[in-house]
Amino acid sequence: MTTPHAPSADDIRAVSPALARYTSENLTADVWARPGLAVRDRCLVTVAALIARSQTMIQRHCIENALDHGVTPAELSEIVTHLAFYTGWGSAMAAVAPLKAVFEERGVGNAALPPASPALLPLDEAAEARRAAAVEANLGEVAPGVVKYTTELLFNDLWLRPGLVPRDRSLTTISALAATGQVAQITFHLNRAMDNGLSKEEASEVFTHLAFYVGWPAVMSALPVVKEVFAARG
Amino acid sequence: MTTPHAPSADDIRAVSPALARYTSENLTADVWARPGLAVRDRCLVTVAALIARSQTMIQRHCIENALDHGVTPAELSEIVTHLAFYTGWGSAMAAVAPLKAVFEERGVGNAALPPASPALLPLDEAAEARRAAAVEANLGEVAPGVVKYTTELLFNDLWLRPGLVPRDRSLTTISALAATGQVAQITFHLNRAMDNGLSKEEASEVFTHLAFYVGWPAVMSALPVVKEVFAARG
Amino acid sequence: MTTPHAPSADDIRAVSPALARYTSENLTADVWARPGLAVRDRCLVTVAALIARSQTMIQRHCIENALDHGVTPAELSEIVTHLAFYTGWGSAMAAVAPLKAVFEERGVGNAALPPASPALLPLDEAAEARRAAAVEANLGEVAPGVVKYTTELLFNDLWLRPGLVPRDRSLTTISALAATGQVAQITFHLNRAMDNGLSKEEASEVFTHLAFYVGWPAVMSALPVVKEVFAARG
Repeated sequence: MTTPHAPSADDIRAVSPALARYTSENLTADVWARPGLAVRDRCLVTVAALIARSQTMIQRHCIENALDHGVTPAELSEIVTHLAFYTGWGSAMAAVAPLKAVFEERGVGNAALPPASPALLPLDEAAEARRAAAVEANLGEVAPGVVKYTTELLFNDLWLRPGLVPRDRSLTTISALAATGQVAQITFHLNRAMDNGLSKEEASEVFTHLAFYVGWPAVMSALPVVKEVFAARG
Repeated sequence: MTTPHAPSADDIRAVSPALARYTSENLTADVWARPGLAVRDRCLVTVAALIARSQTMIQRHCIENALDHGVTPAELSEIVTHLAFYTGWGSAMAAVAPLKAVFEERGVGNAALPPASPALLPLDEAAEARRAAAVEANLGEVAPGVVKYTTELLFNDLWLRPGLVPRDRSLTTISALAATGQVAQITFHLNRAMDNGLSKEEASEVFTHLAFYVGWPAVMSALPVVKEVFAARG
Repeated sequence: MTTPHAPSADDIRAVSPALARYTSENLTADVWARPGLAVRDRCLVTVAALIARSQTMIQRHCIENALDHGVTPAELSEIVTHLAFYTGWGSAMAAVAPLKAVFEERGVGNAALPPASPALLPLDEAAEARRAAAVEANLGEVAPGVVKYTTELLFNDLWLRPGLVPRDRSLTTISALAATGQVAQITFHLNRAMDNGLSKEEASEVFTHLAFYVGWPAVMSALPVVKEVFAARG
């Protein structure tokens, strides 16, 4: 397995002094320091966006940065697992090498990782029944396999794993949706994120942060949906 | 040329015991074994999705798996060529190294590959005339170059190459469309796939399989289109 | 930093004689030679599409090709910087290694690159006031951070950097939008490109060229927007 390293400041400067300046003065010193979203949360958002896009080049650096700012190995382990379902197995597999390299470097062993089959968080059975009924009515005949796994693997298993709290699982999900241009799914997941405790100010700041990591157009396409969600919640 | 290897089960376990479990118990032992879509077809779908996304990390493993389950070297050769047009030259070029490595490993020589210019399958001239007229009317003034190459290279050449039967070419195409979020093109190509012999049950199962390889949101965005196609075909 | 090389013609032939033929006879000898868009512009479009998609495999080759056809090191430096904002930091970071490798190979030093903070081009204050007011009215409450950086970093800084003329900056942007499926943003940026001097014939040819580098479906999804822009401009 290869584990590419991020370009250094000197590497960046060798191709673009301007990009080096934007990186240090604007992205690192300004955006990352903005109030409204904790640095730890910015790490979750960034790692999720990079894994979602299979951008392995700077994953290792961002994983190290996440560990330095309070994201635990257990949480990183859950994020990769979560994104296997939300951005595809290939992107999760591509993240294994960088994450394994950092875990080895820092002596993170299996005892620090969530077990394969932990005791799950309690299920909100009424909300889940409503969700399952809506999806079954809409897609039950078209794709019974998708409906079955959505219930069994996603909402009755993955989302109930305790290694990543629901609010952070939502943060991971909406970052991945923005990163992959899946704007239509943002309505459901941003509402869920806010139900799970993400404030409006934090949500707004997530998209400000993401503008730099997934590019302006992807965020500009997502913001009308964010606006609708904010308006509907009052 | 580099040819990365997929992470092993131990590598996966070292970052996420849960992901290792989902991979072996749910993806490999359950999803891949579902009736409704042959393992050979699942290999086509998976390879197409990974090439479409330039996810080289596990391409080599999936190519080996495809050869082990009845996909021929000639078909893999055609899939890469087909995806050059449907997902861009860059993704095809990224697939050359993994495919070449496997071909060398298994002693697949040029004699096993389709020639550059084979005798083509017969063209359905009436259907092609309708397609060409519709595209010309819609886009002839906007992008005459696109219209010209769509006719000459795609529908009068690529699609008529005998090394991959039309039904499998369609399977490759719809997998790539789901993988790249090109939902608007699924209507035409899913209809074509079903005209080319893909059953409704197989089509449904393709999207169930893809949920794991392109992620839930990409499939959830595609399914409303699939539902419409199924409904329109009765 | 790793700098993968593009597959050679022999590598391509070893997996697909057909793909080798399409590459040499159709893409290189035909598409690249079409009138309507200069080879230099085709280089800008291709490099932008590959960086936008983090397709590092053939970036090095395309960067060399760009330098051979009149794109300057300074322009390439600006393109990478521009795309950090338009396709995300990760894709710019992935382009650093290939670009640095080519610059070293050709002895391109920092003196040939645009300074971090050059004297900027004059701002069209009336147009910028209209743009800023429209974005503020639409998104000011939802994402004040995005609105602030859009004004400060993008339209009052990045777009005014003299190292890449506005018309070429627009060409870079619309190529990146097509490459990443951000169709909704094409209306604004294609109009801007044409305001900045891109002719209708050139714009049409950009999308013909892109069909090969971002795939047919991505271009087919973009062309209805292109058609609307052309129609609205008369």
